Amino acid sequence: MEPVYVAGVGMTRFGVLDDSITELAEKAAVEAMRDSNSIEHKFDYVIVGSQDPEEFTGQGHLSTVLADRLGIVPAGATRVETGPSAGSSAFEEAVALVGAGLASLVLVIGVEKMSGVDRGAASRIIAKMVSLESEARYGATPAALAALVARRYMHDYGLTRDDLSLIPVKAHKNGAKNPLAHFQNEVTVEKVNAGRIVSDPLTLYDCSPTSDGAAALVVASEEAVAVLESQNESVRVLGIGHATDYHAVQHRLSLTSLRATVVAAESAFRMARVKPKDLDVCELHDAFSILELIDMEDIGLAKPGRAIELVKSGTSQVDGRIPVNTTGGLKARGHPTGATGVAQIRDTVLQLRGSAPKGLQVRDAEIGLTHNIGGFGNNMVVSILRRR
Amino acid sequence: MEPVYVAGVGMTRFGVLDDSITELAEKAAVEAMRDSNSIEHKFDYVIVGSQDPEEFTGQGHLSTVLADRLGIVPAGATRVETGPSAGSSAFEEAVALVGAGLASLVLVIGVEKMSGVDRGAASRIIAKMVSLESEARYGATPAALAALVARRYMHDYGLTRDDLSLIPVKAHKNGAKNPLAHFQNEVTVEKVNAGRIVSDPLTLYDCSPTSDGAAALVVASEEAVAVLESQNESVRVLGIGHATDYHAVQHRLSLTSLRATVVAAESAFRMARVKPKDLDVCELHDAFSILELIDMEDIGLAKPGRAIELVKSGTSQVDGRIPVNTTGGLKARGHPTGATGVAQIRDTVLQLRGSAPKGLQVRDAEIGLTHNIGGFGNNMVVSILRRR
Repeated sequence: MEPVYVAGVGMTRFGVLDDSITELAEKAAVEAMRDSNSIEHKFDYVIVGSQDPEEFTGQGHLSTVLADRLGIVPAGATRVETGPSAGSSAFEEAVALVGAGLASLVLVIGVEKMSGVDRGAASRIIAKMVSLESEARYGATPAALAALVARRYMHDYGLTRDDLSLIPVKAHKNGAKNPLAHFQNEVTVEKVNAGRIVSDPLTLYDCSPTSDGAAALVVASEEAVAVLESQNESVRVLGIGHATDYHAVQHRLSLTSLRATVVAAESAFRMARVKPKDLDVCELHDAFSILELIDMEDIGLAKPGRAIELVKSGTSQVDGRIPVNTTGGLKARGHPTGATGVAQIRDTVLQLRGSAPKGLQVRDAEIGLTHNIGGFGNNMVVSILRRR
Repeated sequence: MEPVYVAGVGMTRFGVLDDSITELAEKAAVEAMRDSNSIEHKFDYVIVGSQDPEEFTGQGHLSTVLADRLGIVPAGATRVETGPSAGSSAFEEAVALVGAGLASLVLVIGVEKMSGVDRGAASRIIAKMVSLESEARYGATPAALAALVARRYMHDYGLTRDDLSLIPVKAHKNGAKNPLAHFQNEVTVEKVNAGRIVSDPLTLYDCSPTSDGAAALVVASEEAVAVLESQNESVRVLGIGHATDYHAVQHRLSLTSLRATVVAAESAFRMARVKPKDLDVCELHDAFSILELIDMEDIGLAKPGRAIELVKSGTSQVDGRIPVNTTGGLKARGHPTGATGVAQIRDTVLQLRGSAPKGLQVRDAEIGLTHNIGGFGNNMVVSILRRR
């Protein structure tokens, strides 16, 4: 594969926002173009990650609309969808296009506008990603499945409610320092424990919110990076892995390990020629708090059932040995589904450049990993980036 | 780019069918796997092209569902959407993945199940691809826009209603010999002329139908092709081009030439190192009859306004110098939107292998081109294939 770089990044605030889906996408894209000094260059493609703009917003043909609105016609324009990992899947297509030599400069936009429909409608749209035959017809929402997983994890490994609450506490602590986060307030273990029960044992604070937002990347070949003469350092894409698992949770081998993460991470590490111990910073898909622990184990940061020790010891804090979700993660940064995977890359690029927000910068970060989940634990994309 | 091949093809009948979207996709996919002798091999990815399965069928997360149903978990699974060119855009992603060396064996599925909703609902879903600001709010459906284009073409070039009717007559003549076509009946110029007016001057016979159906491809690296030991010849991907135009028709430079086709075709020809005169067979996107003429001119088969001469002289017939839409095209083969681009590739592969249906085989076809339109004339993918 030809060398591939992330030359520019952009992101809107995540939250319940007034902007339309196209306004959000444009803001993030223009920032990424400015950041990479590419605004007057010719883009070969725009690849858009979005879960369901037709139903959330009534806007179809989104990639074409954005190519036009951004003034990059006749660039090829494609939308990519893998549920809530649509953003990192869009990044993957951009990496493939540049890696194959089919493109030199690709704009990647991850975007979702979820608050334009009421909560019931949003839940119905999101529920289309779980299995109709085995899950949806029995009322098994993503939160209910996460609760099942949490209960099993607690049973198998002795995790307590107080332990689990440390995850949202860390997320909110980091989110409070992230000016683009959906939630910018700290919470306590007591507050998490006492939150409204969404699906026992998970409370409101164990669940990522319904957010609006967009993030964008300029993905470039080595030649294009040289031509751009950007002030900001570009970051090398070292590895990318993508794997699925059986659609319905009941068909999987385990409730407490997500095999698709294991496979995707192994592919990404193999391609990148690095190991979990080489990582300096991670953005993991904590749509529900229990997933952060499982993700840490599945990518190889801890043995099964032991991730909580890294949380308790401070190892996964910003100043720890392997900081996880320094941005607040999906829980506090927010989770506009199609935008999340792109935001994870953007935030990791900032870490590797040394320009993360005040109080969130990891010391001397060289290698970062992002992990994005598609449906409930079944369509994962893992990316590994390295400072040049 | 690494060499990329189409090693296997499959397709369901197109039409109003009883099968569900997953059943259609599975049938085409299993046929492509069998055709390439790959059914027991490990797929790295499945890439699914589909315009709007959530709204047409209520099924979300389609790529994951299909990876599971087809027994190819943990293959990475992605859905790609560019409106009605979703199928060829899925093919494009597969080409990029193999071309970059990120994958050796990729299953591409194009599928749409449109008849499960009533015609009004289908029209509303499809209409989400035209510009809300400039078109949809004034009632400008795709058919209305095509009528506008046809009127202008008639005005500029003196095309008559009888001339235009030759296109559906040829489509139905070919479709009648294609066992998988939606329509398998011949029609006359008189019948086309006398058809119900959909949008003046276009009659029912100028417009492609609303179809269900699926097509599939096995896309493979050179190494994988060697390992498969398929009985059937694989076909080389010589070139691929993808380009957009302004979303709203009113913002474009011309009504009678689609600039995105010109740009996409130029890219594909440049990459393939062939010229329009080298083509032996073409599948062009004739969602409306007038588009077949415009497409022929835009890819370089005829000068502006002159494509009708190739129709009248028989040049674009199966036994002519440059046969166009030997399968019946979108008009007669049918147009399940996300499936169309993949069906075009599948049908071209059959031509290059010399195994097209009886009466439709082009003599000694070596190089074929497919052209697939996204929205109304704004998101085009052109592919060029060559017999090995």
